[in-house]
Amino acid sequence: MSNNERPFDLLNKAVGQKVLVRLKSNMNIRGRMASFDAHMNIVLEEAEELDGGDTKAKLGTILLRGGNIIFISPA
Amino acid sequence: MSNNERPFDLLNKAVGQKVLVRLKSNMNIRGRMASFDAHMNIVLEEAEELDGGDTKAKLGTILLRGGNIIFISPA
Amino acid sequence: MSNNERPFDLLNKAVGQKVLVRLKSNMNIRGRMASFDAHMNIVLEEAEELDGGDTKAKLGTILLRGGNIIFISPA
Amino acid sequence: MSNNERPFDLLNKAVGQKVLVRLKSNMNIRGRMASFDAHMNIVLEEAEELDGGDTKAKLGTILLRGGNIIFISPA
Amino acid sequence: MSNNERPFDLLNKAVGQKVLVRLKSNMNIRGRMASFDAHMNIVLEEAEELDGGDTKAKLGTILLRGGNIIFISPA
Amino acid sequence: MSNNERPFDLLNKAVGQKVLVRLKSNMNIRGRMASFDAHMNIVLEEAEELDGGDTKAKLGTILLRGGNIIFISPA
Amino acid sequence: MSNNERPFDLLNKAVGQKVLVRLKSNMNIRGRMASFDAHMNIVLEEAEELDGGDTKAKLGTILLRGGNIIFISPA
Repeated sequence: MSNNERPFDLLNKAVGQKVLVRLKSNMNIRGRMASFDAHMNIVLEEAEELDGGDTKAKLGTILLRGGNIIFISPA
Repeated sequence: MSNNERPFDLLNKAVGQKVLVRLKSNMNIRGRMASFDAHMNIVLEEAEELDGGDTKAKLGTILLRGGNIIFISPA
Repeated sequence: MSNNERPFDLLNKAVGQKVLVRLKSNMNIRGRMASFDAHMNIVLEEAEELDGGDTKAKLGTILLRGGNIIFISPA
Repeated sequence: MSNNERPFDLLNKAVGQKVLVRLKSNMNIRGRMASFDAHMNIVLEEAEELDGGDTKAKLGTILLRGGNIIFISPA
Repeated sequence: MSNNERPFDLLNKAVGQKVLVRLKSNMNIRGRMASFDAHMNIVLEEAEELDGGDTKAKLGTILLRGGNIIFISPA
Repeated sequence: MSNNERPFDLLNKAVGQKVLVRLKSNMNIRGRMASFDAHMNIVLEEAEELDGGDTKAKLGTILLRGGNIIFISPA
Repeated sequence: MSNNERPFDLLNKAVGQKVLVRLKSNMNIRGRMASFDAHMNIVLEEAEELDGGDTKAKLGTILLRGGNIIFISPA
């Protein structure tokens, strides 16, 4: 692979930042990423479940299993 | 990865504490986390299945397979 | 991980005891756990499929594949 | 793990015997187990697909992939 | 494991023979098995998709991924 | 395994040829196979999504993940 | 395998280019591929969720898990 950037570099830069996470179950969760590992398990702080652009539920700090994730985006 | 925190640190701190677990089957379970392993299998004591904020069923002590988990949150 | 208890300790203590098993297919099975392995495959004796609290079908001795399990609880 | 019995011992004893297999697709198959391997792949002889207690279809000898199995029971 | 027969022996004997394959998607395919590998990937020649006992579609030679298979039966 | 042919030999012979691919999502895709790997990931050129025998959409060159494939057939 | 091209060569050539990604959840996403890894995890910049040929939602930069992908196509 000829480029030096790797997908997980995006996660590294996002630590401490707000991210939006789309899950397979069609949930959207927004929160500040505190940490991640090689399985894409992530800890989000001040996490909120979203309904469109609005907050549907406050989840606090959560450990999200990587296997449920479709994509992660810096919010 | 540049930060020293890892997602499983959250589980380590939560041992002996109440946690809320969201499952793929859309179940919500609350209980006191007694132990966990690298597959995110966890033992919950005084576990309850929730329906909204209410107790739907008392489950006692359960061993929950990690593969069913969407997220775990200190309750 | 700072605690010495591990989730599979619960299975070890449950050998010879009645357990309740919730499956992904939404089945509930109760039986006496005769053995288990690292994949959470378990053998249940005098196993019964439950419908609410009642016996729906007597299954006898069964080998249950771990991958189907949501949780196991000492009954 | 403190007991000496292992779940696959049940399969070992069932070779040459009639077993009932419940599949994830909700099929029930009965047949005489000729062999098995570590993935729980099994060969059944004189296999029948069941509908309740009745024979729905005669399948002859089949190689069943372990990943489809919920449980196996000596019939 | 005390018996000398193994499930894949059935595949070995079936090379060059007609087999019936039931897939998770509920398709039934019949064809002459030309080869297989350890993942249960198989090549079928003169393969036909069946609808009940009738030919629904002629598929020619196909490479079928093992992960889709429920069972394989000498036809 | 007693025969010398292996399922992936079919892919090797199909490089540069038209193939038909049936996906788990029930899509049928036809295209010229440019390359493949051990996970059955394949590159198809001039790929078309089919609806019955007709072209439903032109997809151009695509990299198809092997895990989605039910079968591949030389077209 | 007799050809020298490999499926991931397509990804290598697509770095910095627009790609279209079809997901298992039936989403279509278009964006400029910034990086990828061996699991087919990819980073897309200026990513858009498509509805037919139109933009349904602007997603910005996203890290997409490879396991959700059906195919990737240079757009």
